[in-house]
Order: sequence, then C-alpha cells, then structure tokens
Amino acid sequence: MKNIIILGSTGSIGASTLDIVAKFPNRFSVLGLVAGTSDEKLEEQIRTFHPKVVALADATAARRLRARIVESPVEILDGPQGVIEVACHPESDLVISAIVGGAGLVPTLAAIRAGRRVALANKEPMVMAGQLMQEEAHRQGQSIFPVDSEHSAIFQSIEGHRREDVRRIILTASGGPFWEHSLEEMGQATLHQALQHPNWKMGAKITIDSATMMNKGLEIIEARWLFDCPPAQLEVLIHRESIIHSLVEYRDGSVIAQLGLPDMRTPISYAMNYPERLPLEPPPLDLGAIGKLTFYPPDFERFPCLNLAYEALQGGGTLPATLNAANEVAVDAFLKKEIAFLDIVTVIRRTIDASVPQPLRSLEDALEADQRAREKASQFIHSHA
Amino acid sequence: MKNIIILGSTGSIGASTLDIVAKFPNRFSVLGLVAGTSDEKLEEQIRTFHPKVVALADATAARRLRARIVESPVEILDGPQGVIEVACHPESDLVISAIVGGAGLVPTLAAIRAGRRVALANKEPMVMAGQLMQEEAHRQGQSIFPVDSEHSAIFQSIEGHRREDVRRIILTASGGPFWEHSLEEMGQATLHQALQHPNWKMGAKITIDSATMMNKGLEIIEARWLFDCPPAQLEVLIHRESIIHSLVEYRDGSVIAQLGLPDMRTPISYAMNYPERLPLEPPPLDLGAIGKLTFYPPDFERFPCLNLAYEALQGGGTLPATLNAANEVAVDAFLKKEIAFLDIVTVIRRTIDASVPQPLRSLEDALEADQRAREKASQFIHSHA
Repeated sequence: MKNIIILGSTGSIGASTLDIVAKFPNRFSVLGLVAGTSDEKLEEQIRTFHPKVVALADATAARRLRARIVESPVEILDGPQGVIEVACHPESDLVISAIVGGAGLVPTLAAIRAGRRVALANKEPMVMAGQLMQEEAHRQGQSIFPVDSEHSAIFQSIEGHRREDVRRIILTASGGPFWEHSLEEMGQATLHQALQHPNWKMGAKITIDSATMMNKGLEIIEARWLFDCPPAQLEVLIHRESIIHSLVEYRDGSVIAQLGLPDMRTPISYAMNYPERLPLEPPPLDLGAIGKLTFYPPDFERFPCLNLAYEALQGGGTLPATLNAANEVAVDAFLKKEIAFLDIVTVIRRTIDASVPQPLRSLEDALEADQRAREKASQFIHSHA
Repeated sequence: MKNIIILGSTGSIGASTLDIVAKFPNRFSVLGLVAGTSDEKLEEQIRTFHPKVVALADATAARRLRARIVESPVEILDGPQGVIEVACHPESDLVISAIVGGAGLVPTLAAIRAGRRVALANKEPMVMAGQLMQEEAHRQGQSIFPVDSEHSAIFQSIEGHRREDVRRIILTASGGPFWEHSLEEMGQATLHQALQHPNWKMGAKITIDSATMMNKGLEIIEARWLFDCPPAQLEVLIHRESIIHSLVEYRDGSVIAQLGLPDMRTPISYAMNYPERLPLEPPPLDLGAIGKLTFYPPDFERFPCLNLAYEALQGGGTLPATLNAANEVAVDAFLKKEIAFLDIVTVIRRTIDASVPQPLRSLEDALEADQRAREKASQFIHSHA
C-alpha cells in the first residue's frame, strides 16, 4: 500500500491521479491533498478518499471547508505553511506535484528537501529552478520522477538503455490549435479558439501554452534538467496526432519512442507504481485504423515562444524563471481578455529584454526573479491597455 | 576485444557484420568465418580480417580456396562437420548465425549446445526448432540474442520494462512490393518485380519472402520463441515506410517502439556490443522531412502466407519446420522461374495438407520433417510443371 500526497488535487492531473487511486484501492491510499481555493471540490475528495490531512492555500476557503466537514477526522491546514506541511508529511511514499504554475515551486522543493519521493506533473518548478531541484534531490539520494506525458515518454525510452549513448532527445508537439494558421490569423485569434486543443483535454493555462507553443519551450527546459541533457541535444518535432509522445535517438542510429492514445492516466500510473505497470487495460492503440502519423519541423517564426525558451535556457541563471513568470502573467491576462493572443509573446519578450539575469544560487534568487518579472509583465500589460 | 564467429559471412548480414568489425578494429576480432560455396568472397574476407579458422560447407569450394591461399596460417575446414567445428570454437565470445534458410539450424544448435553465445540473424532455425533451441540455451544459461530488425526492435522495446506487463507485440511489415497489387496482378508478377523490396536491400530468398509476406509469418513464429509470447499476443501491422521496426504494448496502454532508417548495421552492432551501443553515428532520423508514417491492418486474403504461419504455430510440433521447408523449396523454384509467384503459396499449402505433424522432441524430428516437406514440395512443383 502506497501513501500518496497530491499537490493540486482539484486540477486535471489531480483528478486523474484520484481516478487511479479509486481503481486500485488495495495499492494506494490518499494520505494528503492540497488545493488552492476549490474548497467544494476538495470536500468531495475528502469524503471519497478520506485523507489524513489536507491544505488549502487560501485561508478563507479553508475556513469554509472546516465549517462544512466538522464530523470528519481530517486535519485541515491553510496558507503557504499549511501547504508545505502536507507536502513534507513524513509518512508519504510519493508526492505528486501538480499545482498549476510557479506556485508549485516552494512546496515541491520543500518536499524534495524533506527527502520525499516526488513525481513532477507541473513543469514550472523545474523551469524556474531545475538545477536547484536536481541538486537537492541528489543530496537526498532521490530522483525526481517525470509525469508530463513527453517526459514520461523520454524516461520510458531511456529505461533499459545507457544514458551516455543518447544522441538526441526529441519532444513531440501537436502544434496546437493554430498550427495551420498564419501569424495574421493568430493576431485575430479568440480565447475560445485558443482553448481548442486538438488532442488533449487539459487545464486552461497549459492549453494556452500549447497554442503559443510556450508549453513545448517550457518542456525543453524541464527536459534539460530532468535528463541532464545539453540544450543542443534537445529538439522539437511537430506531430499532429499526439500518438508518439517523444523519442530518444542513440548513437547507433536506433530511436526508442513511447506511444499511446492521449490519456494522462498512463504516465501518472507509471509514476505511481514504477517499475510495475498497472493493468489499466485501455483500448489498444490501433495504428492500422489511425492510418497515418504526420510530422513537421517546428516553425520558429510563427511560434517565437520556442525561441524564447531556448534563449532563456542558453542565458541560464534566473532567466528561465523570468520567462516562466512573464508567460504566466501574460497568459492570465489573455484568459481575462485583457490582451490579444499575439500580445502574449510581446509581453514575454519585453519582460525578458528588461530583465538583468542573475545567477541562480538559491530558491530566493528564483522567487525574486519571478516576482520582478511578474511586476514588469503587469506593467507592460497595463501600459498596453 | 571480442572474438567473433560469423556463420554465413559471405551473405548480406555477414558483410554488414564485417563492416562493423572493420570500423571498430579495437573492439572486435574475427575468429572464424563460415560460408557455403563462395570461396572467392571468403578468400577476400580472409585476406582482410585474418580469421584463425574458416569453413566452407562445399568441399570442392574449400579445395579451391586451399589451393589459392597456401601462404596464410588460416585453418580451412569443410563439410557439415567443418562448419560445426567453427560454430562451436571454444574461444569465441559471440557467434553471429546468418546462414540463409534451414541450413543454419544444425550449426546454430551445435553452437548453443556447446555453450556459445549466439546472436541469431536467420529466422529459419527458430522457425524449425524454436522450442528446442530455447530449451538448450536455458540449459546452458545463455539467451539467444535477436538480430533480425523486428526482433531487435522488440528486444529493445522490452529492455528496461517488465516482460509480464506486455499486452501485445506488434511486428511491422512493409507489405513488400505487392502491397498495392490485386491477387490477379500478383498472378502475373515477374521475378524482377518480386525482387524490388520498397525499403530494404537484402538477399534474394528473404526478398521473395517479403513479397509473399511469408517473411512476416516466419518472424511471428520466431518471436513466439524468442520472447516466449503466446501467438494470440503477436500481431502484424503494415507500415509502408519501415521506419518503426516493431512495437510492444503494455497493460497500462503505453507502447514502446524502436525506430530507425532501414540499416541492418544498427541491430547487428547492438547484438555485437550489447548493452553498449557503438557510435555508428548514421544520419539522424529526420521525421520532419519524412513527413508521415502510414499504417494498414494486414490483409490475410491477398497474403495467405500469414495465415499459413499462424496455422503452423497453432498446430505446433514439426508443422513450422514443414512450413519453412516447403517455403524454401517453393521460393527456390520461383527464383529459378520454375513456378509462378502465386504458386509459392499453393506449394506450401499442399505440402502442409499432405503432412502429418509430429511432436518435436529432438533435432532429428525437425530435420526429418524438413526433409519430408522438401521432397513433397518438389513433387508438387514437378507435377505442376
């Protein structure tokens, strides 16, 4: 029986994780749940999975929750300290880190520092402070387990092979809803259009990141740290059908890839039960019926966020944290219809240009860069409006 | 330094193996070479690679060779016994078994019985007596290493994962030169047309086997024994571009596949240097430039050899040996223009129908079934002519 903690339990990844727990009640037990503000969803999860402890980042939401479930023995914490306390709970066997955006960094790093085993479903912490997270994990004799479908694919394509024989890591990208649109058309893109991902049903933030392809940029940065891979060996390949989740090429010309129908339960369950696979028994992958898989080289002109990500990776230090924060603020403004789709990249570009990158020596360096970038990006958005 | 023995050194696989030896002279040394009748090619190989011992199955060819290279210290053996002696040489680190057709069975099994490590590039021995070969290998504490591109792909897609989690093994097939032809058109197929494989440059026998798709049938039987996999879990998928060499589906829905440009040096070198990969550094696999990979379900109506193979596997005992022998005789007759393309399957079908399958308890059982099937198939061909 594995004791699971889910950071971000009311999001899309959190729900899929709890699906798996419900399917295999003899293998997993929910020890702790963390959410931001969704006290009603969390209440439902408490009543179904009976965790020992939960935390809501929002203290008001926590008060509402406490008032409603007085009869349950669950301990309800709140605020940043409450979130960290659940993340570091000493009885956990696995912490699934799935808080959307940079907010996941502090509790995830805290869990790693506390020697907890962490499976990472949100990429932002790795983007903001990948080197620190890996150093901390090594110090604790742990490795950070990937959950993102591309990184799970890369992990599965290296298992059983020698890391030193790797020549290239190729992350596939669907190209998002605007792959066939001109820059002019993207200039007119509505929020509704940007939220139509061709293959995956995900949260709003990551869906917009897929439309700008910043999602792939962030994944490149994440892969750099997860697999200790030089940026020159990391490539992007457009693959419209999202069936091949990523590929690893070795120096003898052999390429290992992981494929599957788009279903996050596969990589989540792999992380939860590694090295054994759970008998999810989904429909078989019928390539004969699918008929074809298509591929294109990436287009850095129409999707400049890809370039921004490579630049941030090359620049190093706090630059990826700046990139990530500017992106979060810009996407949030787009979701609130404060800026147009193509303004997202402009806001990020201007924020990066206005930033002085610093060396990344501590969590505080990352958080400071994050804070400063958020302020600058907000300024640009307001001056723009 | 690994001491290599190549059974079938003057064939296509043998030549590719020697290519790799030439490229990595500090890693491999040629200890022994075996050929059938090609004394001139073998002479060239002796002068380049300086093996300690060679054998020619054909005694006359061996005499010619001896007469020509009196100055060399190489020991030249001949006949079936000479071939076995080289195959079992006690100083070898690896025996690459690449003799075309059923002729490879006796020396390959002898090498396994002598406790030699064997990499299998010819599928016929496994088809004829897979169970015996595996039992013998287990007894010697050895495993038989796959070299065929599909089986190497399967091996590479299971490495690092749990055999017991496998749900399906999917062998890809190009469909050969006649995939888009009707049965009527195949009835008119010339030898020249049948020898045009769309993706691989191989020997004549295996190229015709690709045109009838018996090659995939034999590979299914080979996979059954190499990976101890029930026939119901073995599937064929038509994949025209031969980029995905095979796939393994696990019970969580994850599919691992091995891909690459069609180049036998990749699987051969993997077998030669496992678990390390050799830096062959071939051109990278550029899926963006290739653009698409296409897939179709197999067509058992137009390619009845696939059915014959599944039937032989289900029937068990000596039936696969019968199938293989009938196929060899029929393909040979087609190569000699004695029969038409579609007669190949008729000859095999009639030979199987006229055979009484026996349990396979020993090498002799397999050889007897092989001999009887060859006689029957020849009779059908002559009565046909």
